[in-house]
Amino acid sequence: ESNSNLIRATLFPGDGIGPEIAESVRQIFKVAEVPIEWEEHYVGKEIDPRTNSFLTWESLESVRRNKVGLKGPMATPIGKGHRSLNLTLRKELNLYANVRPCYSLPGYKTRYDDVNLITIRENTEGEYSGLEHQVVRGVVESLKIITRQASLRVAEYAFHYAKTHGRQRVSAIHKANIMQKTDGLFLKCCREVAEKYPEIKYEEVVIDNCCMMLVKNPALFDVLVMPNLYGDIISDLCAGLIGGLGLTPSCNIGEGGIALAEAVHGSAPDIAGKNLANPTALLLSSVSMLRHLELHDKADRIQDAILKTIAEGKYRTGDLGGTASTTEFTNAICDHL
Amino acid sequence: ESNSNLIRATLFPGDGIGPEIAESVRQIFKVAEVPIEWEEHYVGKEIDPRTNSFLTWESLESVRRNKVGLKGPMATPIGKGHRSLNLTLRKELNLYANVRPCYSLPGYKTRYDDVNLITIRENTEGEYSGLEHQVVRGVVESLKIITRQASLRVAEYAFHYAKTHGRQRVSAIHKANIMQKTDGLFLKCCREVAEKYPEIKYEEVVIDNCCMMLVKNPALFDVLVMPNLYGDIISDLCAGLIGGLGLTPSCNIGEGGIALAEAVHGSAPDIAGKNLANPTALLLSSVSMLRHLELHDKADRIQDAILKTIAEGKYRTGDLGGTASTTEFTNAICDHL
Ligand SMILES: CC(C)[C@H](C(=O)O)[C@@H](O)C(=O)O
Ligand SMILES: CC(C)[C@H](C(=O)O)[C@@H](O)C(=O)O
Repeated sequence: ESNSNLIRATLFPGDGIGPEIAESVRQIFKVAEVPIEWEEHYVGKEIDPRTNSFLTWESLESVRRNKVGLKGPMATPIGKGHRSLNLTLRKELNLYANVRPCYSLPGYKTRYDDVNLITIRENTEGEYSGLEHQVVRGVVESLKIITRQASLRVAEYAFHYAKTHGRQRVSAIHKANIMQKTDGLFLKCCREVAEKYPEIKYEEVVIDNCCMMLVKNPALFDVLVMPNLYGDIISDLCAGLIGGLGLTPSCNIGEGGIALAEAVHGSAPDIAGKNLANPTALLLSSVSMLRHLELHDKADRIQDAILKTIAEGKYRTGDLGGTASTTEFTNAICDHL
Repeated sequence: ESNSNLIRATLFPGDGIGPEIAESVRQIFKVAEVPIEWEEHYVGKEIDPRTNSFLTWESLESVRRNKVGLKGPMATPIGKGHRSLNLTLRKELNLYANVRPCYSLPGYKTRYDDVNLITIRENTEGEYSGLEHQVVRGVVESLKIITRQASLRVAEYAFHYAKTHGRQRVSAIHKANIMQKTDGLFLKCCREVAEKYPEIKYEEVVIDNCCMMLVKNPALFDVLVMPNLYGDIISDLCAGLIGGLGLTPSCNIGEGGIALAEAVHGSAPDIAGKNLANPTALLLSSVSMLRHLELHDKADRIQDAILKTIAEGKYRTGDLGGTASTTEFTNAICDHL
């Protein structure tokens, strides 16, 4: 039943609560008549020798071919020497930027009601090089690698994003007062790109100060771009401001126009299969995916329905203090479509 | 007028607002009859060849001899090749642990009113090794160094601190899922020390998750111990929770029992000399110094007077939304002594 008017997208439901929240996306896309045909792939039960990981060769080929995908949580199998599945995907698909829109959800109360920022994280290098060794007994070192190519690439993405999404300012986050060479190179690349976008304001903020400002007054920030580890830290901090990873969309951008949207929360095995999971992060990630495909009408409609359902508060899942099941919450969203 | 009943302590008033806030400490110590005799040292105007920095040899010798000191903000002179004065002090005096008590100030409203934690930061190695180089054009690397010796030392300090300060739990903050060797060694050392303190609970928290939990619910934490950069980030984040660096005490612990307390905020040249500065961070740091000297009665009395003055809110400096001058605020504290 393949239909040439449909856009093919890879779907990784993932582990634990993954299949349930993926079902929520499928249902909502159907009701909203999103012209997408899912190509579903599960994480394998054994190492696929062609990928040297639990990810199957077919699933990676699917993303490469479709150039767009949505991913639920994946639990990395326990045991020595297994690369994290998330890291493997980043590496194999060259997902160089992790983009997380982070905004206060109307009606869902946290200590902050004025968050509206985007974190853009370099996703391939820095502290995640994997290069580590023992120098002598009791002395170990890790290498942080920063390259001009990857820094320019993520900076370019950040400024382009700012420009095309009506954002005013890009802040580069760094610790170049200490790591003058690595973070210094990162900043140099950001400055070079900033020159090409005179309409976007550019500033540099030291990471410790950035975290202090974020908890005092997150409204000070607009688009933040940063090396890998700072992005890991700050994107989770920002998620905390608005309620946690269960509410935060995420999208990974790869070379060649690939976009793999993902829920960044865990697979919650304790509640898996019980129809209790909150699908919001995966749903909002699917909205990011639609925006990447420039299906803005569909994206707006679905996003509005999600936000309205949360704002009304009648159907909320347990993590948000409610008693609704995954399907009740999903049905409520469909009613708003 | 040297008096053998007095404890000699080094005082670095520092730059900018430093002399004014140091004067506040001097006045309050006098009124509270603290048995301390200050030995005052300023940052030099030229490089002292014996320290290869603007810090004079005499000033470093003074701390080494007295083993206890208090330091205001120091602006690092601008220009290439000048080591930060703060980093130089850490290095020259082997200040291996930075300890920051962080608690909500009664009556001073922020988004959080339930913060009561201690951050303990390894202060000598990690990402601050200074080892960086260009591999090839466009590719640079920084080395993060973790040693067994420094990790055990700071872990030991953290558990000892917890035990002697009535704290229940130590959380080691890390990213060992990515930096398995470096952060892995840090954790291994923390675990070893934890075994010697069965009465103190021990847990390990990944830094991204830690930052998310801190902004959602800081009351979850008690004592946090971590490598250098994570400590830099998290201690400032925590300061933000309670109002900023102007309210946060800090004390550096060195080998041989040295304690150098310090205000970690900047020198605020814009308001220097105008009697507008808030001396709270330096005052609370001086309280940390008194506790280190086990002068707990004096420490309690001074801390109570500071907190009461802030809680009453009648005399607050501009940074806290008040109109009091440094001397008015200081006099109000003296009235509470
Ligand atoms: C699970 C972990 C390896 C990963 C990371 O550090 O990147 C996670 O924290 C994330 O942000 O996706
Ligand atoms: C000024 C800077 C070098 C310093 C650091 O990074 O340690 C500061 O942020 C601090 O926390 O004392």
